[in-house]
Amino acid sequence: MSTPRTDRTIALLETLEKGAAAKVQANLNSMAPDLFDTLLGFGLVDVLDRPGIDLRTREMLTVAALTAMGTAPEQLEFHIRAALNTGVTREEIVEILLQIAVYAGVPACINGVAAARKAFEAHGI
Amino acid sequence: MSTPRTDRTIALLETLEKGAAAKVQANLNSMAPDLFDTLLGFGLVDVLDRPGIDLRTREMLTVAALTAMGTAPEQLEFHIRAALNTGVTREEIVEILLQIAVYAGVPACINGVAAARKAFEAHGI
Amino acid sequence: MSTPRTDRTIALLETLEKGAAAKVQANLNSMAPDLFDTLLGFGLVDVLDRPGIDLRTREMLTVAALTAMGTAPEQLEFHIRAALNTGVTREEIVEILLQIAVYAGVPACINGVAAARKAFEAHGI
Amino acid sequence: MSTPRTDRTIALLETLEKGAAAKVQANLNSMAPDLFDTLLGFGLVDVLDRPGIDLRTREMLTVAALTAMGTAPEQLEFHIRAALNTGVTREEIVEILLQIAVYAGVPACINGVAAARKAFEAHGI
Amino acid sequence: MSTPRTDRTIALLETLEKGAAAKVQANLNSMAPDLFDTLLGFGLVDVLDRPGIDLRTREMLTVAALTAMGTAPEQLEFHIRAALNTGVTREEIVEILLQIAVYAGVPACINGVAAARKAFEAHGI
Amino acid sequence: MSTPRTDRTIALLETLEKGAAAKVQANLNSMAPDLFDTLLGFGLVDVLDRPGIDLRTREMLTVAALTAMGTAPEQLEFHIRAALNTGVTREEIVEILLQIAVYAGVPACINGVAAARKAFEAHGI
Repeated sequence: MSTPRTDRTIALLETLEKGAAAKVQANLNSMAPDLFDTLLGFGLVDVLDRPGIDLRTREMLTVAALTAMGTAPEQLEFHIRAALNTGVTREEIVEILLQIAVYAGVPACINGVAAARKAFEAHGI
Repeated sequence: MSTPRTDRTIALLETLEKGAAAKVQANLNSMAPDLFDTLLGFGLVDVLDRPGIDLRTREMLTVAALTAMGTAPEQLEFHIRAALNTGVTREEIVEILLQIAVYAGVPACINGVAAARKAFEAHGI
Repeated sequence: MSTPRTDRTIALLETLEKGAAAKVQANLNSMAPDLFDTLLGFGLVDVLDRPGIDLRTREMLTVAALTAMGTAPEQLEFHIRAALNTGVTREEIVEILLQIAVYAGVPACINGVAAARKAFEAHGI
Repeated sequence: MSTPRTDRTIALLETLEKGAAAKVQANLNSMAPDLFDTLLGFGLVDVLDRPGIDLRTREMLTVAALTAMGTAPEQLEFHIRAALNTGVTREEIVEILLQIAVYAGVPACINGVAAARKAFEAHGI
Repeated sequence: MSTPRTDRTIALLETLEKGAAAKVQANLNSMAPDLFDTLLGFGLVDVLDRPGIDLRTREMLTVAALTAMGTAPEQLEFHIRAALNTGVTREEIVEILLQIAVYAGVPACINGVAAARKAFEAHGI
Repeated sequence: MSTPRTDRTIALLETLEKGAAAKVQANLNSMAPDLFDTLLGFGLVDVLDRPGIDLRTREMLTVAALTAMGTAPEQLEFHIRAALNTGVTREEIVEILLQIAVYAGVPACINGVAAARKAFEAHGI
């Protein structure tokens, strides 16, 4: 059953990457029927969709946080692609990764470079 | 002995917070005479001072990363003050903290709120 | 303005610790007027209140997770008290802390012991 | 040479997953002849085998901790299978993963979903 | 009741810092009567007391690991004092902290400097 | 353009592993033309090349830190090979991994064993 909240979650996810919503929804809802709504309704509708910071800057912040944490390489790769899709440039991504070397160490940055390489290739840049 | 690199490190640190340079320099150089130059020359002159992302946005990225990591509450508090000093608004800081709840969990966000409370009080906002 | 969701969030927080809701609500809403609802509505109503695992066991899981992460000592102390309030015994708390030594190391366990000592004292046990 | 402690370590590991003991013992003892006894004697005999919390609940706690930490995806997958083997249900696993989203963030939960998918497939559920 | 293993644990802890054993034993055993033996028997007798690496180098490794993790500032301070007590020099400690800036970031190093300052003061150096 | 600093960075990286410099330089500079110099000039020339601790001991410290952090398995594998190349023995590597089990948990150690297995195979030991 579709609700306005689910629809908005899907629309936001499609803004981050065209084609992502169906895959993420299938992945999560195969675990529990409402997992997509509970997790991504919170993350996307309740938080990322708020005014105050534009989506482009929010994706930069997410790339910074996930690079620093170092525990979610696939989500980092997704959010580098999402950052590119919302207008962040290749050069800005590299600057973020380098900046994180200062705060979380050189290995975190080099892991970020590996994720960025795949994301840049997917974008043909 | 002062070098152009040390001078630039000090100038950047003073941009982040007036009066910080003398304290940080004394703190680090009491450990080893060149620790300030080695660590903060790298972090500030070699990285933060690069073009590509403006200092205001860089401080937002640092607040996001340190909130997500959760291991440096005093540096987080410093960088929230530095973010305010470079033009980030109180509202933007709160949005960053909330966004990090999505990526690093609610406790990381609540720790960020504690750091922000002190930083906002120091700024009288 | 009160909504059924806010009311349920408050009721759940009061179950975890009597008197907690007013403090947490004031703390978060001083940052942004809807921060309490957004963060704790998600954490408590959307997640902890779900059937499938009883609240007592959920608090044991939270104590395990926060002890392993080691980045939120005050929330760990709160959740040890909340665990006691939902029927977890002092002995079970100690067993959880010891078990986390296996998975996250002895220092994480010893930090947990420090949090438990304060929580046990608050409960007079 | 077999000792009662080694025998008990093996028995406990076989309870977690039939066939695991020989593989883990070979893996660790190829590094140092007593690594299996030192590490898993501690983890399994000295800690997991203690009374106070039953093995089924202990596996739920381990799944919570490893999902929150996010640094050991293979051990997480093993412990999801071990949880199923000690009586934890598929539904309870999913609830644990969702609960960890609150405390360690959505990416930690999604990494847990990836580990659970493999474990559920191995169990044909 | 004293056993040779408990005695050896106490002796090793006293080598790390004179007077530490009684305090640590009281702290842990107030939680569970055998917590000291279980945790520190493993950490000190089963691991640190092994040949292959001398205790002085082992303390350097522990300082490196705890500085990088950033979640146990009090244990880090203890192990900096223990490192000094087993022959590590003040200069070596500072070099370790600086090296960790490369691998875990500048804030981890600065947290280490704060712990080292207290440890150096306790040693009057 | 080659500078004395770049030359020294390359020489140090070749000491850690013959053939590494060209690969790392190509990897990083494909992101930004000066990324290799900025990151590894800091890490290798400004920090690792300092007197006070010999390179062999420094690689032991790096193996300890990366095993404890658990977020950079490929860099850990590289540094285990680098440790072997600077004179650390197979036995010492295993002792470091076991010691980290005490401070960061058994899964961190087992991840380290997986990295060590690959590094030992690459060295034919």
